[in-house]
Amino acid sequence: MADLFIYNSYTRQKEKFESLVPGHAGLYVCGPTVSGESHLGHARPYITFDILNRLLIHLGYKVRYVRNITDAGHFEEEGRAAQDKVAEKAKLEKLEPMELVHKYTSLFHKFMEQFNCLEPAIEPTATGHVIEQISMIEDIMAKGYAYEVNGSVYFDVKKYAAHYPYGKLSGRVLDDNLETTRELDGQDEKRNKADFALWKNAPPEHIMRWKSPWGEGFPGWHIECSAMSSKYLGETFDIHGGGMDLQFPHHESEIAQSTIAHGHQPVRYWMHNNMITINGKKMGKSYNNVIKLSELFSGSHPLLEQAYHPMTVRFYILQTHYRSTLDFSNEALQAAEKAYKRIWEAYETLQQFSVKTIPAANNAIPRAENCGTELDSKIQQLCHECADFICDDMATAKILANFFELVPVINSIRSGQAQGGAVQAETIALMQHTFKTYLEDIFGLRPMAAHNNNKLDGVLELLISIRADAKKKKDFATSDLIRNQLAATGIQLKDEKDGSVSYTID
Amino acid sequence: MADLFIYNSYTRQKEKFESLVPGHAGLYVCGPTVSGESHLGHARPYITFDILNRLLIHLGYKVRYVRNITDAGHFEEEGRAAQDKVAEKAKLEKLEPMELVHKYTSLFHKFMEQFNCLEPAIEPTATGHVIEQISMIEDIMAKGYAYEVNGSVYFDVKKYAAHYPYGKLSGRVLDDNLETTRELDGQDEKRNKADFALWKNAPPEHIMRWKSPWGEGFPGWHIECSAMSSKYLGETFDIHGGGMDLQFPHHESEIAQSTIAHGHQPVRYWMHNNMITINGKKMGKSYNNVIKLSELFSGSHPLLEQAYHPMTVRFYILQTHYRSTLDFSNEALQAAEKAYKRIWEAYETLQQFSVKTIPAANNAIPRAENCGTELDSKIQQLCHECADFICDDMATAKILANFFELVPVINSIRSGQAQGGAVQAETIALMQHTFKTYLEDIFGLRPMAAHNNNKLDGVLELLISIRADAKKKKDFATSDLIRNQLAATGIQLKDEKDGSVSYTID
Repeated sequence: MADLFIYNSYTRQKEKFESLVPGHAGLYVCGPTVSGESHLGHARPYITFDILNRLLIHLGYKVRYVRNITDAGHFEEEGRAAQDKVAEKAKLEKLEPMELVHKYTSLFHKFMEQFNCLEPAIEPTATGHVIEQISMIEDIMAKGYAYEVNGSVYFDVKKYAAHYPYGKLSGRVLDDNLETTRELDGQDEKRNKADFALWKNAPPEHIMRWKSPWGEGFPGWHIECSAMSSKYLGETFDIHGGGMDLQFPHHESEIAQSTIAHGHQPVRYWMHNNMITINGKKMGKSYNNVIKLSELFSGSHPLLEQAYHPMTVRFYILQTHYRSTLDFSNEALQAAEKAYKRIWEAYETLQQFSVKTIPAANNAIPRAENCGTELDSKIQQLCHECADFICDDMATAKILANFFELVPVINSIRSGQAQGGAVQAETIALMQHTFKTYLEDIFGLRPMAAHNNNKLDGVLELLISIRADAKKKKDFATSDLIRNQLAATGIQLKDEKDGSVSYTID
Repeated sequence: MADLFIYNSYTRQKEKFESLVPGHAGLYVCGPTVSGESHLGHARPYITFDILNRLLIHLGYKVRYVRNITDAGHFEEEGRAAQDKVAEKAKLEKLEPMELVHKYTSLFHKFMEQFNCLEPAIEPTATGHVIEQISMIEDIMAKGYAYEVNGSVYFDVKKYAAHYPYGKLSGRVLDDNLETTRELDGQDEKRNKADFALWKNAPPEHIMRWKSPWGEGFPGWHIECSAMSSKYLGETFDIHGGGMDLQFPHHESEIAQSTIAHGHQPVRYWMHNNMITINGKKMGKSYNNVIKLSELFSGSHPLLEQAYHPMTVRFYILQTHYRSTLDFSNEALQAAEKAYKRIWEAYETLQQFSVKTIPAANNAIPRAENCGTELDSKIQQLCHECADFICDDMATAKILANFFELVPVINSIRSGQAQGGAVQAETIALMQHTFKTYLEDIFGLRPMAAHNNNKLDGVLELLISIRADAKKKKDFATSDLIRNQLAATGIQLKDEKDGSVSYTID
């Protein structure tokens, strides 16, 4: 098994990955809060850690990948009273909270499928683990690091910080936290501002509520991940991933909770992807630039010039190292779309070269002998480097750069114009194997099915204009024919109030 | 809202459906035990109650459809020691039980999508509702109808039967039950053989375990449905559905538990679909005729002569009333496949007839005036009967029989050979609307290959026929527009020598 080096956010250095149980790897990633539709900001962590999961599998690990669903307990932002995000949104949509949870969980799964993210092995829900959370809270209380006030239970951060390195992961010091913690609810109940809720007493009108030793209430946000990760991966596990915005307070709180409950750090390697910006600005409601994934895929947000295929988005994310910030703009996504098509076309061309292929059962990339020509050596080098790049903290962008060097080589081989000498059959096979391994297996890319969807869109626009024309001429036979025929094909036309025509495809 | 009559298994008669809250309908259906892959026997209840859900929506109800996932608590069959099906299977597959649960839940969702079953509004899991189950057990104990032995809790069926009509739903009498109950585990603990487990003490090696007032253990199978249905639909709700095999002991136990906990019957209308057989035999491991859905869709079971499309299976199920037994055989499925194609082709032909369509917003099927001709009257009658049939305990087979009478009529209208007189435009529209309403909206059928390439093909055929028509009318502007616009989209039309038009897609 090749050595994998990853950047550990906790120690702030690249470390060789050594799993707790040889051959097995435990991976926990903070999943979505299903109180609403996922947006562009959610795409990055799930794609980043999908690549990590795929890489670990490629390297031969048996991976237990756990990604939770936060369907309770995630409080609203700073400055408001404690409110469960799911319960609050359910009121707005006039749904039972669990109807809302089902709706958005289902939608999230569809997006993950569109991004070609492999499913986690376990997808535990917060509401499904209230008993485990209560047990852990009782444990923390018994150890003297949590206290109850009016049916709510708070973690005593000040006491913890006096004995343990609180803030080491996020780099925050306690004095800062006193002012900036997100949960300011029930402040009078807390001993210190930095303390956070493990359990909240539910007011009578609160729908989501469970019995507990402190009366009916609901769990805090942070405790769910500690309870679920330890249940399914153990009290110490290999890798915990998430977006950098979760370092504080969420992951910092997870460390504190688990350290008290279990007597030691829960996680061996913390990994965080960096944030995204949109046209250079932080994403946020105040900028009106929160782009939902359905808007991104359909091009229906005012900031978008066109629809972007999930594979374009995935490819774009791979073009930047996961620990760098990443700016989304129409220009950048359009360039990524072109680049992706270019590389995929070359890949398809490459696969058509008829040579003895390397046995698929052998996962290792064979190191063919150098046959001497300059071109042959260059191809071999560019291919062999990929294994080093991916194991150097997932340097996906460097691999793509190598592939872009290989694209003109592939095209020149096809046209018989290769410069720099002959290329061995083994080298072609190496290149085929390398492209397949990285593009498909590890990067999780696949052909844009949109190939034909785009064509379908184009043809539909044409039909819609013919229909409009027919209606103008009062040729209703034709306009009805078009509508009915499309309906029979599973495509519904809808005449909008503004005179335009939209359509939905079943 | 039209009157709907359904057969209530509890009262053993057809009753007019009156929902508890006007305009709203609550529907609970027992979902799958996700310890393995769904088989043919599972197809029938989920398709049957999907039709009910679609029918209620069609009639104008706002439906809250709850279908659970049994991911714990379902004991193995008679004669073995109490073992949780999920935990047991996990050992065999060497997976953490929740990995197994995720795997098979995900697969179940894919099958439901392939069957075109609408998603339920809420899909609660047994493991996600342990607290609710414990509360309900405590309640039943407090009322004196359950007792604890060695950390397990049993429902006192004998005591219940002395005061309430136990066995009324399933038609069993208590003496029978004493001999035939499925759970014979820990018999020495039970006061009577007919008693069933509400909570089981977990032996040390049992992985799936939760804290409870009776020590660590896991819930019984029956209690989950009572706890979850009352949580999401209320202590009394409209319809409870499931396969007839669930009447005893599962639904009988649900009635008993809820009657004690809440003081009254939980369900207003019980509905059960009848069983299936395979080549005339009961499905079972001993007959080696348990056909998994993946085997059915791929044709990979020794008993299958070919693969069967999910729509063929759905259609076949609709051809028999849900309360009759249904035998699966290659002959029957092949006949259903042909019949389905025949009806769908006629439907597509029908949709091409160009007439004023009926406003889609009006769900009611318009009762056009009788125009006098024999054929016209017959068509109207066959269409109007559908509303009566569907509201008469979902007589889907009768509707299909009417449609099969209409298929030759549609084909004769197309060829201009209609016998029996003229057909009004309104009657054509009525027929179009009726086919659409039943085949698509209520029966949930869709074209067999619903993927977008087929859509593109369908749309292109339409454009080619519009172009041919334009050329005939010497409207070269339109015919050229179509050719050029398609070429710009990467689709080349080619006029063949025989007058037909083919196309190539780049």
